[in-house]
Order: sequence, then C-alpha cells, then structure tokens
Amino acid sequence: MNEHALTPTPAAAGLAAGPPVSHFTLANGMEVVLIEDHRAPVVTHMVWYRNGSADDPPMKSGIAHFLEHLMFKGTKNHEKGYYSNLIADLGGQENAFTSNDYTAYFQRVAREHLATVMAYEADRMVNLVLDDATVNPERDVVLEERRMRTDNDPAAQLQEAVHAALFTQHPYGKPVIGWGHEIETLDRHDAMAYYQRFYTPENAILVVAGDVTRAEVEPLAQTHYGAIPARGERPVRLRPQEPPAYAHRLVELRDAKVEQPSHQALYIVPSALTAKAGEQDALELLSHLLGGGQTSLLYRKLVLEQQIAVAAGAYYMGGAVDDTRFFLYAVPAEGVELEALDAAIEEELAAVQRHGVDEADLARAKTRMIADAVYAQDSQATLARWYGAALATGENVASISEWPQRISAVTVDRITAAAHLLKRQGAVTGYLKTVEAEANHE
Amino acid sequence: MNEHALTPTPAAAGLAAGPPVSHFTLANGMEVVLIEDHRAPVVTHMVWYRNGSADDPPMKSGIAHFLEHLMFKGTKNHEKGYYSNLIADLGGQENAFTSNDYTAYFQRVAREHLATVMAYEADRMVNLVLDDATVNPERDVVLEERRMRTDNDPAAQLQEAVHAALFTQHPYGKPVIGWGHEIETLDRHDAMAYYQRFYTPENAILVVAGDVTRAEVEPLAQTHYGAIPARGERPVRLRPQEPPAYAHRLVELRDAKVEQPSHQALYIVPSALTAKAGEQDALELLSHLLGGGQTSLLYRKLVLEQQIAVAAGAYYMGGAVDDTRFFLYAVPAEGVELEALDAAIEEELAAVQRHGVDEADLARAKTRMIADAVYAQDSQATLARWYGAALATGENVASISEWPQRISAVTVDRITAAAHLLKRQGAVTGYLKTVEAEANHE
Repeated sequence: MNEHALTPTPAAAGLAAGPPVSHFTLANGMEVVLIEDHRAPVVTHMVWYRNGSADDPPMKSGIAHFLEHLMFKGTKNHEKGYYSNLIADLGGQENAFTSNDYTAYFQRVAREHLATVMAYEADRMVNLVLDDATVNPERDVVLEERRMRTDNDPAAQLQEAVHAALFTQHPYGKPVIGWGHEIETLDRHDAMAYYQRFYTPENAILVVAGDVTRAEVEPLAQTHYGAIPARGERPVRLRPQEPPAYAHRLVELRDAKVEQPSHQALYIVPSALTAKAGEQDALELLSHLLGGGQTSLLYRKLVLEQQIAVAAGAYYMGGAVDDTRFFLYAVPAEGVELEALDAAIEEELAAVQRHGVDEADLARAKTRMIADAVYAQDSQATLARWYGAALATGENVASISEWPQRISAVTVDRITAAAHLLKRQGAVTGYLKTVEAEANHE
Repeated sequence: MNEHALTPTPAAAGLAAGPPVSHFTLANGMEVVLIEDHRAPVVTHMVWYRNGSADDPPMKSGIAHFLEHLMFKGTKNHEKGYYSNLIADLGGQENAFTSNDYTAYFQRVAREHLATVMAYEADRMVNLVLDDATVNPERDVVLEERRMRTDNDPAAQLQEAVHAALFTQHPYGKPVIGWGHEIETLDRHDAMAYYQRFYTPENAILVVAGDVTRAEVEPLAQTHYGAIPARGERPVRLRPQEPPAYAHRLVELRDAKVEQPSHQALYIVPSALTAKAGEQDALELLSHLLGGGQTSLLYRKLVLEQQIAVAAGAYYMGGAVDDTRFFLYAVPAEGVELEALDAAIEEELAAVQRHGVDEADLARAKTRMIADAVYAQDSQATLARWYGAALATGENVASISEWPQRISAVTVDRITAAAHLLKRQGAVTGYLKTVEAEANHE
C-alpha cells in the first residue's frame, strides 16, 4: 500500500510539445493541476501533501510514513476498507508513497469514476478516525516492514549509515520509515497532531491526468475539495539545516550476509529549489554524462576499459526542497578492492573537473535526456508524478515547460563547474564489504 | 567567563577517608551538598543546573552556552557588572561553564562572603533581565568565539565532525557552543524561554565546599535559595536517542594549516548512569590501563617499543546522562602513516579483548587511580566539581563514597568484558592529516 521508490526527476517533464496542462488554485488554497491525455478513457488522480519524512518532528521520525499507512483506516463517514473495496470493484488501482519532501496518494480509474476518487480523498483529508485499536497494530506492521527491509539487510543498513553521515543535522539523514526506537513510541496522539498540522487544503496539490477537460475537472474539484474549509496559513516545514562539512567520511559495513561488495560516493549539492540559475540542469546532465547508462564515462572507463567494475552509475536527486544528494556508485569486478575502485572513480571525476567533457558527448547526452522525457510521457502516471513532485518541492509549472530549453543551453563550462561541486571534502564514501574481503585484507 | 573543559570523572571523588559531606534538599526542591574543608578560611560556591548543550531544543543549538553568557548581564535588582565587580573587590574569583549535561556557576571567596555570593546566584536564578541591546551584541561575541576556536582550527573542525559522525541523532553529536548558523538565529525570546524552562530551584544543585559548617550553611541556603518559589516539576530533558550503529566511520580532515597529524578512535559505551553494575568502573580502569600515562599499554607499545607514535592515550567520559564516549588517541612519529598507527592500535585493543590484562598491571592501575583521587582532593574546587557533576548527571552522593571499593573490586574478566564494548563496528576513527601527507600518499 506504499512505496519508497525515487520519483523520476520532475523537471524532466518539461517539453515544448508536451501535453496541455492547466493549473489553478481553489479558494481554500488547494492547487490543482490538470494534464489532459485523451488516448484512453482513464484518469490518474493524485493528491500530494507538502510534507514528507524530512518534516517529521524531533524524536518522531517515521510519522509521515506511519500516517500514510493510517490514511487507509477509515473516516467518520466510511469504515476501513470501504473505499479500497469500491476502487477494486470499479476495476481501479490505488497506491500511496512517502518521500523526504512529500506524501502522495494515487488512484487510477475509468474516467467516469473521477468523482468517486475525489470524494474518497476529500473525505480522508478531513475526516480520518484514529483509535488505539487501529493505530497500535498498524505500528507493529510498520516495525515489521522496517525489520524486513532494513534491519536484516546489510545494504539497507549501509544506506542508512551513509545518509546519516552525509546529513548530520538535516533530516534528509533520517530514513523515511523512521528509526525503530522512535517508531515504537508513535501513538494515536502523535498521528492525529501530525494529521491536523499537515493535512490541510493549503498544503495539498491535486493532480489529475487523463481523458478529462478543465470544464469537467474544475467543477468536480470545486464540489469535493473546494468544500473543505481553509485553515489559514500553509503549515511551515521546520528543518535543521546542515553546517559546512570540512571532513571526508568513509562509512564501511562488513557483514557475513554480504555477497556482492559495492561502492558509493555521496555529495551534497544544490537542488532544483536551492541551485543558482542553470546549476541544476548542469548537475542533471553531469549525472547523465558520468553515469547514465552504458555510454557514460564511468561505465566506459571502469567497466569496459579497465574492467575493474561490473556496474557503475550516477544519480542526481534534483527534485528536493533543500540541498540534496548527488551520488556515484559502482560494483567491483571479482577480486578488485573497493579502495582501488574508489581511486579510479576519483580519477575520472578529477578528469572532468580538469578537462570538462567532449562537446559531442554533451550534445548526445542532451538529445538522449530530452528523448527519454518524451518517451516517459507515454505513461500517464509518470506525467502526474512529475507535476506533483515538482509542485510539492516548490518548483512551478513553468519550470517544467522550460526544461528542454534549459537543458539545451548547458555548456561544457557549466558541466565543469558542476563537477567542481562534487568535492571530496564534505563527501561520504560508502563501502559494503563481504566478511571474506576483510579476512583477505588483513 | 566560561570554559568547555572536561570535568574530572566525578566518581573519582569517592574515598573512604574523604571529607565530611552533607546532602539535603530545600522545600522548593533545590539540592544542597556541603563539603567541609577547614584548611583555609575560604569557600567555593557553585550552582549547577541539570541542563547542558544536549538539552538545547531542536534548531537552537548553543542556547545553553549562550544563556551562560547572558547570566552575567544583570537582573531586576542589579545592573550588569554589579556582582562581578563586587566579587573582584572582595578579592574573589568567579567563572561559569557549560557542558553536554549541565551548566554551572562558580565563585571562590573568603568564608565571610558566602552570603554575598548566595545572594548573587539566587538573584540571577529568577530575576535575569534580557533585552535586545544586551542579547544581540553578546550573540556576536559567541559567534566570534566560535570563529576563533573552531572555524579557523582544523583540529576543532575534525573534533566536531567526529562527534557528529559518532552521534548521528543524539545531541552529544552537537558542539557545546552550537552550530554557527543556528547561533545566528538565537534571540532574546529563545534565551528567556530557555531560562524560564531550566533555571528553577527543582533543577538546581548548590555545592558549597570550604571552611563552613552545616549549621552555618543551611540557614543561609534557606534564606537565599529557599525563598525562591517552587515551580512544580523538575524540567524534562528531551533528547533524541541513537539507533544501533552497524557501520564503521572514518572521518578524515586534511588542511594546509595542519602541522601535526593525529589519530583518534571513538566508541559509544555506557555511562555511569546507563551502565550495568560495575561496568563503568571497568571502563574507567580500562581507559587507565590502555592510555593513562607513560606506563599504559598504548604508550608502552606504540611510543616506547614500536616507536611509531610520540603520544598515545585513552579517556572515558563516564559522567554523562546517556551512553557516552570512550576514546583512544595517538600522535604518529615522523613519517608514520595514520593507517599504520590505526592498525597497531587495533592490534593492542584486540590483544586486551583476547587475553585480558596482567593482574599486576590491574593492581597498579587501581592503586594509582585511588591515589590520584586522594591527591586531587587537595583542591577544594575539584571536590566541588566532582559532587556537582555527579549529582547533575544523575549519580548520588553514595555512589561517590563507594567508588574506591567499586574500583578495588574490578577483576581482569570485567576489564576484558569492558574491552569488548569497544567494537570497531559502530566506532568512529578520526584522521587529522597534513596536506603534504596527502601528496605523498597519492
């Protein structure tokens, strides 16, 4: 009923020849985005809230995700399961997910059932009912989810440790699901206080994508969501910020359960919201050039030429409210030490910092990224997620439509400047090691 | 007017033949400890509050230390400087310090002036006056203190990074002085809210050491401190706790300003308050055996035998409310890589884990520690600090008097068990490196 997967870079939705998009705001402050897509008689309906795990109050990590679970528990008007059963009976799908910066709820139904799913989301935005008999067993479900996914998995443990090392103060360093010892303390009162703080029309964004027009959607949204009274101000995100980092941190986890060692390097860089003009576009292209598939620099050098890795890549989490993560990763070839792999990765990065990239490589990367975005629009759900994530992290609709021009304008000099943002000082390197590797090493 | 030095292990004050100590509580909840010391006609007067930097509210790091500064700014009854000038005129001394778990104020005066310093502390416990004209310039003083001591000093930067890596969630990972970007936001309202929350009789401990009797001190304490109305409950410390640590973290700082490389290893271990019975005594002895002076294991092996270090030591910060730090440190001999020093330290630690320590070494360490505590009692101020720190971190007076017996009872098996608490998994290693070392290394 929930997932923690990364949302595709929202900016990647920007396409000159993209779908018709309308954007308006209801009187109570709730924003609405409509993406018309008339290829099939279906609609994707999402409600996004501008609060994610990074807005969890101190000592209450996991509350955003826990509340996402509890949103399926029934309202003053409808018992638990009523709406989920209804959607299933209509042949629809539903889902929800919690991320660092937002929480979102999703349904996909035939176009004639849009009013039904609007009634569903509007009802649980204000009428959620929580009692101990509901909340306490669900807390055990979440704790079990944490045990299964993290506490028994060395790679997940390393992931948590690497993030906690990178963000020593900022809540991006905390896991979305929360720390086990804090989840254990979450109760009905915490959940209700959180719900009342964040689940408000001012804090919500409705995204509808599908075979409907604005003339249909606007009155429906007005009827179902417009009826919710405004609360006044949008809730404020209260987040400790990160001090400057002077040291490099190497986080190393060895465990008998590890079968495949791996390498990662994480850097704090500006996000789409915190970057200077154009910086995020250069970072996006840099991640593509360094590690986007089998033509990327890291793949060519480490996997094909030097044959010291069997996989290598890069990722830029540009869609974020605060300064965010750029990461490189690699999986060593058999017998290759992670320290040697690390040195080779550093060398590639230093080469880009010193010499930039080939004009031809840059042109190919731009073409490929824009083409990928065109293909991705084939998915109605992907389109809806792009717009929802962008608005939930403080970007606007225009920033999406301007994206192809911005990507086209990135120069080699700006790629070089972006590469200089990846400083070893302040970075975190993560090693996942087998226990055998330790024995060999000492 | 303030310092951040470590307080000597409070438990070390426990001595069968120690000074006469009385302990009582006023009706408003304020505790009083009197340590009689009639060698000279002077008294040491301290007021301890059970709040330190680890109780700083979220995003308000540095407020405990900032308020310590502001406590010298004047009250409803007396202008700024009145008391400090008075104490100087009386030939007295005063000071104050903020630590992770407490804040304390100290005066040393001739015995006949005890009433004067009590009037001083009682006045500023309730009558502090704060306005922008006082608070804002003092904030700049603190920011300048931070710039001087930390931001321009690579060793201090590493210290902060190492602690932030060790305590990813618990506030022991934050600097006592606070993060610069958070200090900048502290204002009169933050300071007054903090003052009203923590500066209460229920939260305070009066320690008087000197040439006075209970018959003299009790009525004076009653007059000055007993007159302060009780607030009700003692304020609660709200502290995020640390999740289990699965990974080792190596924190490495290279800077052109570094002239002398150094090595440190930090482990989270139980404190006097969180340890199982006897565990903290074994940890105290272990720190002495491993790194207490020139007869210690690390010094003998690394400095004398292998000559790979010019200094080596160990320290256990036992007096703490929550799980605390045990650390090892070493300074490499010229030309020795920190990686080699690290391996040698690991080897020594592993040897103690596998084989324990010599009975004779243990007996010598016990004798030495108890003798050190006897000598240290010569200082009235040290005695006062032992008792104040112990009570402020949740220990009791009896735990101090029983300390020599507890130390005497520690066996080799318990030392071995304590050594097993120092696990590389979950530990943090810190390297301070010269820039030359980097050039050689690569």
